[in-house]
Order: sequence, then C-alpha cells, then structure tokens
Amino acid sequence: MPLNLGLIGAGRVGRLHANTLTTRVPGAKLLAVADIFEAAAKSAAEDYRIPDHTADPTELIASADIDAIVICSSTDTHCRFIIEAARAGKHIFCEKPIAFDLAEIDEALAAVAEAGVQLQIGFNRRFDANHARLKQAIASGEIGEPHTLTIISRDPSPPPIDYVKVSGGLMMDMMIHDFDMARFLLGEVEEMYALGDVKIDPAIGEAGDIDTAKVMLRFENGAFGSIENSRQAVYGYDQRVEVFGSEGAATTGNWHPNAVTISDAASVRRDLPLHFFVERYFESYVTEMIDFVEAISSGKTAPVVGNDGRVPVLMALAGMRSMRENRPVRLDEIEGQPA
Amino acid sequence: MPLNLGLIGAGRVGRLHANTLTTRVPGAKLLAVADIFEAAAKSAAEDYRIPDHTADPTELIASADIDAIVICSSTDTHCRFIIEAARAGKHIFCEKPIAFDLAEIDEALAAVAEAGVQLQIGFNRRFDANHARLKQAIASGEIGEPHTLTIISRDPSPPPIDYVKVSGGLMMDMMIHDFDMARFLLGEVEEMYALGDVKIDPAIGEAGDIDTAKVMLRFENGAFGSIENSRQAVYGYDQRVEVFGSEGAATTGNWHPNAVTISDAASVRRDLPLHFFVERYFESYVTEMIDFVEAISSGKTAPVVGNDGRVPVLMALAGMRSMRENRPVRLDEIEGQPA
Amino acid sequence: MPLNLGLIGAGRVGRLHANTLTTRVPGAKLLAVADIFEAAAKSAAEDYRIPDHTADPTELIASADIDAIVICSSTDTHCRFIIEAARAGKHIFCEKPIAFDLAEIDEALAAVAEAGVQLQIGFNRRFDANHARLKQAIASGEIGEPHTLTIISRDPSPPPIDYVKVSGGLMMDMMIHDFDMARFLLGEVEEMYALGDVKIDPAIGEAGDIDTAKVMLRFENGAFGSIENSRQAVYGYDQRVEVFGSEGAATTGNWHPNAVTISDAASVRRDLPLHFFVERYFESYVTEMIDFVEAISSGKTAPVVGNDGRVPVLMALAGMRSMRENRPVRLDEIEGQPA
Amino acid sequence: MPLNLGLIGAGRVGRLHANTLTTRVPGAKLLAVADIFEAAAKSAAEDYRIPDHTADPTELIASADIDAIVICSSTDTHCRFIIEAARAGKHIFCEKPIAFDLAEIDEALAAVAEAGVQLQIGFNRRFDANHARLKQAIASGEIGEPHTLTIISRDPSPPPIDYVKVSGGLMMDMMIHDFDMARFLLGEVEEMYALGDVKIDPAIGEAGDIDTAKVMLRFENGAFGSIENSRQAVYGYDQRVEVFGSEGAATTGNWHPNAVTISDAASVRRDLPLHFFVERYFESYVTEMIDFVEAISSGKTAPVVGNDGRVPVLMALAGMRSMRENRPVRLDEIEGQPA
Repeated sequence: MPLNLGLIGAGRVGRLHANTLTTRVPGAKLLAVADIFEAAAKSAAEDYRIPDHTADPTELIASADIDAIVICSSTDTHCRFIIEAARAGKHIFCEKPIAFDLAEIDEALAAVAEAGVQLQIGFNRRFDANHARLKQAIASGEIGEPHTLTIISRDPSPPPIDYVKVSGGLMMDMMIHDFDMARFLLGEVEEMYALGDVKIDPAIGEAGDIDTAKVMLRFENGAFGSIENSRQAVYGYDQRVEVFGSEGAATTGNWHPNAVTISDAASVRRDLPLHFFVERYFESYVTEMIDFVEAISSGKTAPVVGNDGRVPVLMALAGMRSMRENRPVRLDEIEGQPA
Repeated sequence: MPLNLGLIGAGRVGRLHANTLTTRVPGAKLLAVADIFEAAAKSAAEDYRIPDHTADPTELIASADIDAIVICSSTDTHCRFIIEAARAGKHIFCEKPIAFDLAEIDEALAAVAEAGVQLQIGFNRRFDANHARLKQAIASGEIGEPHTLTIISRDPSPPPIDYVKVSGGLMMDMMIHDFDMARFLLGEVEEMYALGDVKIDPAIGEAGDIDTAKVMLRFENGAFGSIENSRQAVYGYDQRVEVFGSEGAATTGNWHPNAVTISDAASVRRDLPLHFFVERYFESYVTEMIDFVEAISSGKTAPVVGNDGRVPVLMALAGMRSMRENRPVRLDEIEGQPA
Repeated sequence: MPLNLGLIGAGRVGRLHANTLTTRVPGAKLLAVADIFEAAAKSAAEDYRIPDHTADPTELIASADIDAIVICSSTDTHCRFIIEAARAGKHIFCEKPIAFDLAEIDEALAAVAEAGVQLQIGFNRRFDANHARLKQAIASGEIGEPHTLTIISRDPSPPPIDYVKVSGGLMMDMMIHDFDMARFLLGEVEEMYALGDVKIDPAIGEAGDIDTAKVMLRFENGAFGSIENSRQAVYGYDQRVEVFGSEGAATTGNWHPNAVTISDAASVRRDLPLHFFVERYFESYVTEMIDFVEAISSGKTAPVVGNDGRVPVLMALAGMRSMRENRPVRLDEIEGQPA
Repeated sequence: MPLNLGLIGAGRVGRLHANTLTTRVPGAKLLAVADIFEAAAKSAAEDYRIPDHTADPTELIASADIDAIVICSSTDTHCRFIIEAARAGKHIFCEKPIAFDLAEIDEALAAVAEAGVQLQIGFNRRFDANHARLKQAIASGEIGEPHTLTIISRDPSPPPIDYVKVSGGLMMDMMIHDFDMARFLLGEVEEMYALGDVKIDPAIGEAGDIDTAKVMLRFENGAFGSIENSRQAVYGYDQRVEVFGSEGAATTGNWHPNAVTISDAASVRRDLPLHFFVERYFESYVTEMIDFVEAISSGKTAPVVGNDGRVPVLMALAGMRSMRENRPVRLDEIEGQPA
C-alpha cells in the first residue's frame, strides 16, 4: 500500500521533490500539489502527472487521502504549515531552515510532539554518497578519533538579490547545510567564531548580507572545525569535507560530469565540477525521500528529526552574533534569548 | 502521445530496460513483457507494474497496441524476433550481438529494410558520459587528428560456464562492445591481429573460449588501436579508453561509488570502482532508451543502426580467425565467407 | 670566485645544509663547521669533506677566510651569533625562528642593519615548487583577487619531549612556517583567533605545549585564512595549501615517492606521501641556499629578510595569547609588550 | 678510495653523466673527459671541474689512473670503445644501444667476457622510482601473476632529422627503452607484431624512419604486452606503464613539476608533465650511476649487463621485420641472421 503524499510549494526545490517522488521513490504516491501561485501548481501537476493541484495549501493539508505533507514553500510559512499538518495528523517533510526564529521553531516542534507525527528536515547532504562514506569512516574507527573537521562549501554564483533579502542571510540559508554536516559528522558544537564580509557583490552588502565567511567551531567532544563559504566559485559548485583523526583522514573531492582528462599543449585538465546543487546532490534528494517514505511506512523514526532542524538555526544565530561582536560565542548564550 | 513498447526477455538486461522504461524514459509506455519462462515474465510485470505479460513473444509482437519491440532474449532468438517484428511493422531495439552469423544478420537487416522500420542496436556505451566526451574531443578538433586508440576493458569476474558456452566467445560477447567503441570513435577498421589465451579459469578453455585477449587494430584512416580484455579484474570493472592525437590526448578514468580518499598508516586509497556494468553503465542504458524512444517518436534515424550491429560481429570473426591462424586478418577476408 | 661559508650547528638541519652546500649550490665553498659538540662538528666535516671544524663558533665567525655564516644552532643562540657575525662583517643565513622574544630579535636586526650585512631567514617552504606556483597564480592574476587561504600542515609524528620543551611551542616551532606561508602568499595579517589542545600525547601537555591547533587569520587586505596543525598524521607529512580568489582557486597536493597506483581486491591506492620535511622539502632547502649564495655574490637583496623572520614570531605570540584568552588578538596588541 | 672514471662523449647525455658523477655519486671521481670535438671536451671539463680533457678517447682509455670508462659517444663508436676498454682492463658503462648489429655486439661482449671486466648498459629507466615500484609489485606478489603489460611512451617532439638518420630508427633509438622495460618487468619475449607509420612529419618518412608505432608482444611466460610510441605528444613527455595480474594492477602516472591544481572558469587543470627525459629521468640517471660505481667498487655484478643490452637490439630488429612483412615475428627468427 503506497504512502500518499501532498506537496506544498512548486518552486525549484518543490519541483525537484515532485520529480523524485514520481519516478524514483518506491511506495510513494504524490496525490496533489499546492502553491499559492496556482499556475505553478498547475504546471508542476502537468509536468509530473500529479492528479490534483490547488492554490490553497490548507485545503491540501486537510485532504483525507493524504498521509504525509512535503513542505517546500517559502521559509516564513514553514512553521504554520508544520503546525497545521501536525494537527491534521499528517507526517511532515520540511525543507531547511524550519524558520529563522527559535521561539517559532519551538512552537512548531511542540505541535509535532503533541500530535505524535513524524517530522523530517530536508538536510539532503547527509544522504550523499561522499558524506555517508565519511560518516562510515568515523563510525567504523577507520580514521580513529576525530581531531579536526574542514568544510569548504562554495556556490557557483550568488542568488538573486530579491532572494538574498528574504533568505535569512548566508549563515541561515547556505552555511546551515554545513552546520548540519558538522553535527552529522562530529556531534554538537559548543562555541563558534565567525568572520564574514562582502567580497563578491556590493549589492549583497547593501541587502544586509555577506557573501564570504570563514567560521571556527569548537565541538563538545573537543574537536576543532572550520567552515568556509563563498557565494561565487567561478569554476562551479565546490563541496569538500575532510575529517582528520588519530588513525587517518577521510577527504571528499568534487564530482565532475565525466572522468575524462584532456591533455593538450596548454595543460592537463578536466571539465568543471557538477555545476550546482541540483546536479551535485540529485541522488541525495532521491535518497532522503526514499528514507522518509520508508520510515513513515514502517513506523521507524525519520533519519533527520526536528531537533536536527533546530540546532543549525541556533548555530546560524551564534555565528551572526560572533561576526557582529568579533568574539567567540557559545551556543548556550543564544538559547532563550531574542536573536 | 506516448510510444507503446513491448519487451521480449525478462532476464538481467531485460529487467534493466524494464526499470529504465518505466521510470526514466519520457514518452515511453511499457505495455507488456514476454518471456518463454512465464514466471520471469510475471515477476518482471509485477516488479515494474507492466500491465500485461505472456510466455509467447510472437503474441506480444502481434499486439496491435504496441509500436516498438525491445529484444533482450538470448542471442540465438534475436534474428527471428527482428524479422517477425519488422514484418509486423514494429520498430525494434535489439541487444548486442544481433547474431553470431553474418548471413543470419543480413537476412534480419534485409527484413528491417524491407519493412521500413527502425532498428537500434544496444551498444549502450556510446551513451556514457565519458565516451561521449571522447567523441566530442575528437569531433571538435580538441585533440587534433587521432593517431592511436587504447582500450582497456576488464570484467570483475567471468560469467558462469553455462553462459560462456552459448556466449559466442569473449570476442563476440565482451570485446564486441570495444569493437563498437573503436568504430564509434575512430571509424572503420581494416585489419586486426589478436592474441588470446586462458589465464583465469581452465574451465573457460575447456568450454572452447578464452578469458584474456589483446588485439591490435589498423583503422582505414591509418590510425592504430589496441584493445585489451580480461574476464577478471579483482578490483572490479575496469573501463578505460584513450585517444591520442596530433593536438593532445583524451583519457577516461573509472568511476567510483564516492569521491572520498582515505589516508591511513598503510596507504592513501579510494574504494573500488563501480563493480560491474549495471552500476557503471546504468545512465547509458537510460540514455540509449531515451534516444530510441525520441528517435522513433520524432521519425529521426535511430542513433545506432543495423550496420552498427553487423560490423562488430564481423570484427569478432576476424579477431577469432587472427587468433587461430596467428596472423593479421583483414576484415574483407571475412565478408562473404562462412566463419 | 666562490663564496666561502662557515656553518654553525651540525645537527639534523645543519647537516642538511652541509649536504646541499657541498653538492648542489654553485659558487658555494663550505670552509668550516662549528658545533659545541666537537664530535658532531668532526663527523659532519668528514661526511661532507669540509676542510675545517671547531667546537668554537666564535672562532669560526672570526675566520678571515669566511664570507658568510650559516646558523643552524639551537634557537637560544641565534641572536648572539647573528650579532657576532654582523659585527664581523659576515653575511648571515639563519634558521627559523630567529628567537622567541621580540626585543632580542630587534637587537639582532639592529646589529645587522648597522653592519650593512645581509641576513636571510630559513623559511625554505617559499622555495618549494608548489608554493612558488601558488605565488605565481596569485601574482599573475590567474585566480583573481584572493579571498581566502586554507593551510593544512601536519607532521608524521611529534618531536621528542626534550625538544618540545625548548621548541618555544607548536606555534613558534611548527606553525611559524605556516605564518610565513600566509604572509608570503597574501601579505600581512591584522588579527588572529586560535584554538589549541593536546590530542596526541599527554606528555606534550605536561611539557606546557599543544599538539593540535586551528587558527583563523584576518589579513590586512580583507582576506580570511585558516591554518591547521597536527603533530601526528599517521599517513605522514601532510602539506597542503589552497588560495581561493575571484577568478579561481589554486590548490596544492602532497608529493608521493612514486606515481604508481595499485588496484587490488581491497582498494585503489598509492604509497604514503613523502614522510617528512627532509624528503618533502629537500629541493626547497637546495633552492633557498642557491638563492642566498647568488644574492650575496651579486649584491642583490636576499629573498627572505630579517623582518620576514620577525613577523612570524609576532604572529606566534599573538596566537598563543589568543589561545590563552579565547578571543581574537590583533598583532598590534603584541608589539612593544612582553609576551 | 674513490673509483676513478673517464668519460667518452661530451654531448647531451655525456654532460648529464658528468653532472651526476661530480655532484651526486658517492665514491666516484671523474678524472677526464674525451670528445673528438675538443671544444666540447674542454667545455664539459670546465663546467663540471673535470681535471683533464682530450680529443682522443683512446688516450683516455689508456690512462693508468682510470678504473672505469663511461661511453656516451655516438652509437657507431660504442663497440670499438668497449673492446678497447675491455682490453685495457677497464670496467665499462655504455649508453644504449650498444650497436645496431648483433654480430658487432657479440664481438664486443666477447671482449668483455674475455677481459673479465664489468659492462653496464645505460637503461636508466629501470632505476626510476615508478618502474622500481612496478617491479616490486610484481616481485612481492602484490598483483599476483602478471597477465598483461601496457606501455605508452611518447616524446614531446621529434629529434632533428640529422639525428633521425643515424639513430637506427624509432625502434632502435626510442622503443628500445620500452623493450628493456618489458623484459625488466615480465621477462623474455617470444614473438612480436608491429605497426608503424609516419603521422607527425613527412621528413621522418623521407629519412626512412617512422614516428608512430604500436607493437604487440607475446612473452615466454604467456603474458601479452603492447607498446605504443609517438615522437610527438604536444603536452610533453608521456611515460606510463601498467602491469595487470591475477591479483590486481599496478599503473604509473606522469610526474608534473608541481602538485598544484588550478580551477578557473574554464577547467580544473595541472601544469604539463615534466617536459623530457632530462627532467623526467634525472634521478634515474643518478641512481644507475650510483649503482654502477657501487657494483664496481664492491665487486658485485652490475645491475644491467651485456645481454640486457643485446636483447633489446634483437627485439628492435624483430619489430622492424614484423612491420616490413606485416606478420608476427619470433625473436628466434632473427638470431644468427643478417638484419
């Protein structure tokens, strides 16, 4: 018996999930798509042969046929839809970040807990083969006790300024994936120190954001980490992680569209890496959804739970404060305070 | 309006195509599957939600609803089904090799020509991103005029002896892909010289076959080539090609399941390459079928035609004669003769 | 006419320079070696066919035949020998660090300035082919304006505890090379934030030192940097640098003793990287000495001058204070203060 | 007590050995250099501080002070000097090929045997770290029993036509190194099949030579091999070898001047490989000479003996006949016949 799903949000990531749910996820049946822009909902329904579409997410949530809701709408609507869905007894998959505000997140998580439904957060990178291999290298003892973590994460080009303005900023929108990766690999962080600046485009600065950042992490287990983000690597999406430990190191490289080397009179070269997240992480989007559907269908706990969505937001808040005040900030300074 | 397809043969490759046709090929509708082992047909129908199944391929070919037939049955049945399908006015996708005998192939190709249907041969490797990139490097002049070609192609382990006995031999079953690759990249071959022997398993020799071969090619355009095959690389599927030309070289590497390097006290290492053809060439199986469906639907010529299926068989026959007689053999020696 | 040199210190690095000066440096003539352990001086003299040896460095400095002094004795003696040599009108090559104390360094540099002799500091890594290529990538504009720097620098195993005790600590002894590299590539640093801890061997902590550190740098030009050090990478010497800029990135890899890949049933692997600095940086030791001799002989300015020896010491002091006080420390806080 | 050497031939390779003998070879003392062009002898003597020089090789051979002769003169003079040196009781190091004619070689080897002196042939590539690692991979059983060998060996550009005319041809001058490598790694060859043509420069064809060749080898132990040579790889010296065996494969890559990767908007690339043999194989030239001096000094057998110089000439003759007659040629067909 398949799991019946409804999708809220038919933008880029919503369509990506529509694609995976209708072609690659066994046991999933995508019944309906909602988007406040009805044309977007209609177009997605046609392209992915989804039976129903609506401009009213609440209507979709209320549908008796639907077992689980996939939330890909804008961040400011996530908590509202989580709460509605939880109260309707639906299981929930929600894109990152849950929200920019801890109090709002806590309210949503409380509704989820009260309803006894499952909530999975869309930190898809955990499901990538490279990161899974790093996790395995740590878990198996292959590289001993982890001492340090180095994450380099660069986009091929900045998002539109209109998006920058509502994104919550680089740490909330982009580095949040790296905060999740840090926790996924080495556990909780105790203290952070952040440097950030505008190096790519002054318009990003005028919008109140940064485009380049380097952050230092002190983990609760004593390990040290660093994360570097840039909104623009001219050679494309750069996604590398290294964990160094007492018995060795595990280091990821980028994926390229082919494994061909061209040698000519100028150089020995490869084509550029996979351009951006849709190309680079497509399989991880597939896998997270397979795991979500499988967890719901079998009654197991989802692989990325509510608290996994909450802590990276806390880290982004700590990082932003560290940058503003130019000092290391402990995560427990942020808890219980307005950002 | 989708293209309606019927599949003959529900073995390993048949099931692979059932998978791609039902999940990854836009505009394709797989209506029925036939296998003389009815249980195999039934199981494939269930696993891939194919509406109909039958133990009678002729019945499937006769079905008025079906526009195109995908032939994945055993090699000795290919020509018969090609002829039946052509006479029924169906377009045809047929796995390699068409047959082991040139006269039989010629009869099938004549039936296809007479019926005016399309026939695409399953040389999937042409659709692989690495090989497409080599082709582009040549076509664009990026590496100048090709002087030499080097193909190394090794399987992770030999097939079962029962399969070896009906396979037509290493050159007809395995190296035939490399013969196709040679033609795809550098054009027609004029003369070949082949060395072959049993180095892996004496049982392969007792079955009248070899498991290791090295073949030299002289192309019509004057280029030189070499192909090496082994039935057993303990580290897994090894698929590498290099084209060297007047302005440079293009060289493919293997694909690995992840891009992680592990450094420990013993070595700096990667996990083994993708194990075998299902893993390594899955995307090329998808792409060849997308291109087949698109060609049929739009009335364009299929990308790998009947003669592309015939010439590699001719090359296999030349290679086997060269090995037997320990001398270079011209392809035109084989034409019009019994093998 | 060759440049006549005298060597003070016949320990590991002293012998390395004796080797390069007697076999690889055109125009160099190593006349004498001094070591307070006369047996060490004698042994080096024999092994490298140096005409004279003595247990008295002052005697060597006073020798009228000698044009230039190479100082490889223990750090606490560097400034004394620099001052003696400068007053004797000798040119000087001195190993890093000049001293642990800024006032002492300033006194030595003043003596050098007053005497009008040249002083080159032994930051050999600048002369390594990889680092020279990074420098060229920046200087030529190949990677645009630098935005970030990432240095990973790990030793194969910690030095003996007796050495740790007199080494000045990880930042003064080991990371000082990385501080120099940071300045060499991206210019002066304004502020630093450092994390350090004992993760390898408690005895290092008992000796008052750390064995693992991660440091964040803010450069005067606005770029961000990070440096990671570990005293023990079980896979050997790990020396990697990446500069990321507006038009691209330049990234170094490690050198291995051979370019062979072994594929077997377990993995695809290479032999471990060159084990330690003697193997990895031998050619850079040769080149720095060729450049020193050439600069002295031709009257050009030496490529790494006194201030290049002073600033990394300042950075080590800033790093140590940052670690103690867990806050970012500006380099100008350290100037003019006791450490 | 050092070994006193005399050098005959002050051309490119002669000067290379003068360099290694005077700077890198312990226990070697290069006393004199002879070249029929006295200016060349004089210039080498000055550049490498060799005490004596002469235009008369016979005078050098006769010198009582000299223990061993290094022959780097033109190929047509090798046998004459070997015989003279042997009769004078001198040990001999001779560049490849010994001669183009087997009878001439046999006469020289007989003189060496009669005199009881040692003769080492200059197949320097055996001493390269990559090839030594391959040898070790085979000897240690790391890759099991060897099944195949693939050698790709390409020069950056053809030699001058005047040199081509006296070189003995591509197989005698260039591929002879690969014939030696094949024997070094997998033992004796039984039969060869060769393709060769002019693809780079018609002037090479007019001089009676080829510039591109591909050769198939059948080893006595049953293994198969292939060798590819091109006189012009626009990306520089391309030197790769792969041995494939029952338990794995060992594959060499090229060496580059640095380990830096540049990523920009066009590609991810490395600088070209080391340009030619002086750069690529310098260390192997050093090591072969260290081993020669050490063997002579200690009375051990030299690592590459007369027969190792003879068999590759036999292979070149077999290859040339195979090419002319377009058929596989057994090495025992060549023995005892005029070429």
